[in-house]
Amino acid sequence: MKRLAILGSTGSIGRQTVEIISHYPDSLRVVALTAGRNIHCLAKQARQLNPELVVVGDADSAKGLRGMISNNIEVMVGAEGLIAAATHSQAELVVVSVVGARGILPTLAAIDAGKDIGLANKESLVAAGELVMSKAKERHVQILPIDSEHSAVFQCLQGQDPAHLEKIILTASGGPFRTYTKEQLELVTPKEALKHPNWDMGAKITIDSATLMNKGLEVIEAHWLFDLPYEQIQVLVHPQSIVHSLVGLVDGSVLAQLGPPDMRLPIQLALTFPERWSAPWPRLSLADVGSLTFAKPDGKLFPCLPLAYEAGKEGGTMPAVLNAANEEAVEAFLQERISFMGIPRVIEGVLEEHQNKQQPTIDDTLAADRWARRKAQHIMKQPPLKG
Amino acid sequence: MKRLAILGSTGSIGRQTVEIISHYPDSLRVVALTAGRNIHCLAKQARQLNPELVVVGDADSAKGLRGMISNNIEVMVGAEGLIAAATHSQAELVVVSVVGARGILPTLAAIDAGKDIGLANKESLVAAGELVMSKAKERHVQILPIDSEHSAVFQCLQGQDPAHLEKIILTASGGPFRTYTKEQLELVTPKEALKHPNWDMGAKITIDSATLMNKGLEVIEAHWLFDLPYEQIQVLVHPQSIVHSLVGLVDGSVLAQLGPPDMRLPIQLALTFPERWSAPWPRLSLADVGSLTFAKPDGKLFPCLPLAYEAGKEGGTMPAVLNAANEEAVEAFLQERISFMGIPRVIEGVLEEHQNKQQPTIDDTLAADRWARRKAQHIMKQPPLKG
Repeated sequence: MKRLAILGSTGSIGRQTVEIISHYPDSLRVVALTAGRNIHCLAKQARQLNPELVVVGDADSAKGLRGMISNNIEVMVGAEGLIAAATHSQAELVVVSVVGARGILPTLAAIDAGKDIGLANKESLVAAGELVMSKAKERHVQILPIDSEHSAVFQCLQGQDPAHLEKIILTASGGPFRTYTKEQLELVTPKEALKHPNWDMGAKITIDSATLMNKGLEVIEAHWLFDLPYEQIQVLVHPQSIVHSLVGLVDGSVLAQLGPPDMRLPIQLALTFPERWSAPWPRLSLADVGSLTFAKPDGKLFPCLPLAYEAGKEGGTMPAVLNAANEEAVEAFLQERISFMGIPRVIEGVLEEHQNKQQPTIDDTLAADRWARRKAQHIMKQPPLKG
Repeated sequence: MKRLAILGSTGSIGRQTVEIISHYPDSLRVVALTAGRNIHCLAKQARQLNPELVVVGDADSAKGLRGMISNNIEVMVGAEGLIAAATHSQAELVVVSVVGARGILPTLAAIDAGKDIGLANKESLVAAGELVMSKAKERHVQILPIDSEHSAVFQCLQGQDPAHLEKIILTASGGPFRTYTKEQLELVTPKEALKHPNWDMGAKITIDSATLMNKGLEVIEAHWLFDLPYEQIQVLVHPQSIVHSLVGLVDGSVLAQLGPPDMRLPIQLALTFPERWSAPWPRLSLADVGSLTFAKPDGKLFPCLPLAYEAGKEGGTMPAVLNAANEEAVEAFLQERISFMGIPRVIEGVLEEHQNKQQPTIDDTLAADRWARRKAQHIMKQPPLKG
């Protein structure tokens, strides 16, 4: 019996994690669940899984939840509650599917407490990769990636000597606009951008997928997860999202992991690793797929990708600034305050003005995040970047 | 320093093996070389590698060779010489790149002598898979496959629990005639069939590639190498020969090994395993390749593939008979004695008349091989299978 905490159980990854766990009641037990304000979904999960602890974002939500679940379940609130769930004495594996910079502190706390991590929170690695990986090494904690690309790389590297790794090739769907011209990209609306061809995801990540910032953030994550210089991490556009990523080895051999675009596989693997459990979902049939296509990404049309490489290579607080500026810009795009091509322009403006700090503490990182958000908002108030 | 014997060093695989070894004089040392009658190539290799022993097919060739190489090198002849090379006291790894049933006894002898095997000889597994694999297990000997498909599967399975293997998917180029109709296939000439789009190979294997018998034999090899029922081994047509094969795991994850169509990679891996050595040859660029396509093989147009599955499932001496009948039929096709579609008809005729023997000894296997050749020749003398 493996005991788990799920941080952010009502989001897309959280709900799929709960769905998988519900198929294995004899092997997986959830001891803590956390959410923001979606108390109806959280209450349903709590009744189904009967955890020791549930955590919500604020006191009102806690009050509402209390009446909906058994009195035996402890209810906690906010950041303190999130840390309590992340470090719950009974949990062996903590699934961090909280979205955004809020995921960083709980991830670090869980590692400190010696928990293995199923990591779906990008910011923990993008903004705090150095801290997270050094702490994980020190505490002999496994970081099991929960997204299709890093899970693919992780799977390809099983049984391979890390010294034999020559490069990582992350695949990118290329988003819905990969064939657009610069002029067409300027006119993209949020509604168009929210239609992703392959994956069913939240709004923020769907926009990141369309700008290629999602891939840029994944490049930074891969740098930390697999301890590889940016020069050895490539991005390959692959619109069918069947090849989830590849690794190149020193003798020229390339290994790839493939599957239908379905997050349940990487989620389940993170829960069961080093085991693989038989799963009922449909199998990949390449004969039915027929054709897989590949192309180089166009950094001129999708400047978020080179911006991410640049921030990653500079290191320090720069990736945290990249991520925070991107979050603000995407939010502004969704509210139709800036254009699609305005997103990289805002980020570039923020990166240019940032005074980078190397080997940042967690406080430095969070301060850089806050600074970047203010700076992004300031830039977006200036006329040329509107509309 | 790893010490090697190469059986069949002047064939396509043998020559490429020597080429690779010549780049690593400080790490790889050849102690024995064998060939048939190509004494000029063998003499050149012997002068370059300075082995302890060279073996040729007959006394005349031995006499010719003697004058061309150093007196310090021992020269032996025929089957006895082949066994001496296979069991050479200094060899740790024996590369068996002899073509045909002649490879079986030296492979068994090398395993008996505790040598690891780099196996490029199909017949050792097709005709004697049960014996070879049980002996290898008993003697704790590694069988390292030297062909792109089985090397791909072998690479994908590194670090995976064998219990997690759900299926093997062998890719097939489909040969030059994969888009032909039955009527067009009837008219194929040896000249057309010898043009293989991707791989530079000998005549026999190029024809086998065009009939899909090559893939059928590989299915039987995979059954023995990876200990998997035929129901869990699939064939997928993939004309670009970039994905060298795939494995499906119980959770639906699919792992694949990719690379340019170049035999040097699987050869080098067999020589260096469990190491991988940095190699100078060109890297795969999927962006340059652009598109990979996949299709189900058509067993009606290419009956050799279902015939191989059938013979494999029946087991016993049936796969040896399949292989021998195919060799005779391909030879007859190359001599324009039968048509392209005559090849599977001859094989089917021979299989139908064979009295199968389960758990055959090596003598049973070799007797079945001889019987099948006589039967094939007999069938080919009958009018309906001519032309």
